[in-house]
Amino acid sequence: MPHIAIPEGLPGIRGLFTFRPETAKPLCDLADALLHTPGPLSPGERELIATFVSARNDCHYCQSSHGAVAAVHLGGDEALVAHVKRDFESAPISDKLKALLAIAAKVQQGGKSVGDAEIARARGAGATDTEIHDAVLIAAAFCMYNRYVDGLATWAPAEADSYRARAETIGKNGYAAIPTAVAAARAASGLPRT
Amino acid sequence: MPHIAIPEGLPGIRGLFTFRPETAKPLCDLADALLHTPGPLSPGERELIATFVSARNDCHYCQSSHGAVAAVHLGGDEALVAHVKRDFESAPISDKLKALLAIAAKVQQGGKSVGDAEIARARGAGATDTEIHDAVLIAAAFCMYNRYVDGLATWAPAEADSYRARAETIGKNGYAAIPTAVAAARAASGLPRT
Repeated sequence: MPHIAIPEGLPGIRGLFTFRPETAKPLCDLADALLHTPGPLSPGERELIATFVSARNDCHYCQSSHGAVAAVHLGGDEALVAHVKRDFESAPISDKLKALLAIAAKVQQGGKSVGDAEIARARGAGATDTEIHDAVLIAAAFCMYNRYVDGLATWAPAEADSYRARAETIGKNGYAAIPTAVAAARAASGLPRT
Repeated sequence: MPHIAIPEGLPGIRGLFTFRPETAKPLCDLADALLHTPGPLSPGERELIATFVSARNDCHYCQSSHGAVAAVHLGGDEALVAHVKRDFESAPISDKLKALLAIAAKVQQGGKSVGDAEIARARGAGATDTEIHDAVLIAAAFCMYNRYVDGLATWAPAEADSYRARAETIGKNGYAAIPTAVAAARAASGLPRT
């Protein structure tokens, strides 16, 4: 049961967006900038980093929802997403993405854990400053989103189909339009603020 | 030395905002919503939570900069900020703020660490759902900002005066205007993007 009174039927961070629209907008704008808008890393690569960090933080909702979006960007390859979560070093992905996931694994432990060795490996695999920056910030941001979702004990569906159903829309439209949708849900719920 | 090429002379997250303006805006909008715009917790209380979590994450830049802003909101009481960082349970603050800091301490460890006991304590001290929500999200957000600043090994001044000089402006104007200022710094630096 969630720690605060959020509307039933809205899983994970979506219920929190409905509860507190003031913070929903910057949180969705940040997710859109990190994962969806054009950048040097593809949306599939960026969603894989988000999914991987969420798995390391044991956040069921975030690893399921972003894993489903990653699979959409990767031609439906859910097995690849599972492989990256389980053991990215042996997954059929580029050496550059492996090096960025190794950086993300350090960020998940703490900012000071990222060492010169991880950065040198990424550069050796062809990563630019902007790609290293983006990998660090995506990993850091999911240390926030994961703690937000689990720190308030939100509800999340167990079954993968719930996430697949939304992933196509997110993969196509991104995250910036979510606050408008949840504001409508909030108005419909009539939830009092305490 | 920072892991990526950011302009010299801009400490901590400010150099990163200059490097990547696309993410600077939602990051500053989020900080403004969490710490500066009116909410049930005062700006001083919210900056104390941010400072406390940054200290637990051993992030020198964030605990110094937000500690200085907290002191501005608390009538210049830097000793109170230091006391909260050292041992908030014995600090001269409200029982409600102590309970919210106890929640923040759990969020810093991981989202699933927040238990019913911490929530019950906060409710017993008069905290509302929105105050509990805001404390959790502030703590989670600083697990992001701290990892961003330290994961890229940004430079930060050691001396407290550097932070005091900016804290008055932030305390008055908040965070939303920062991207405009750093965009000007970026244009002046002529930094190439890689």
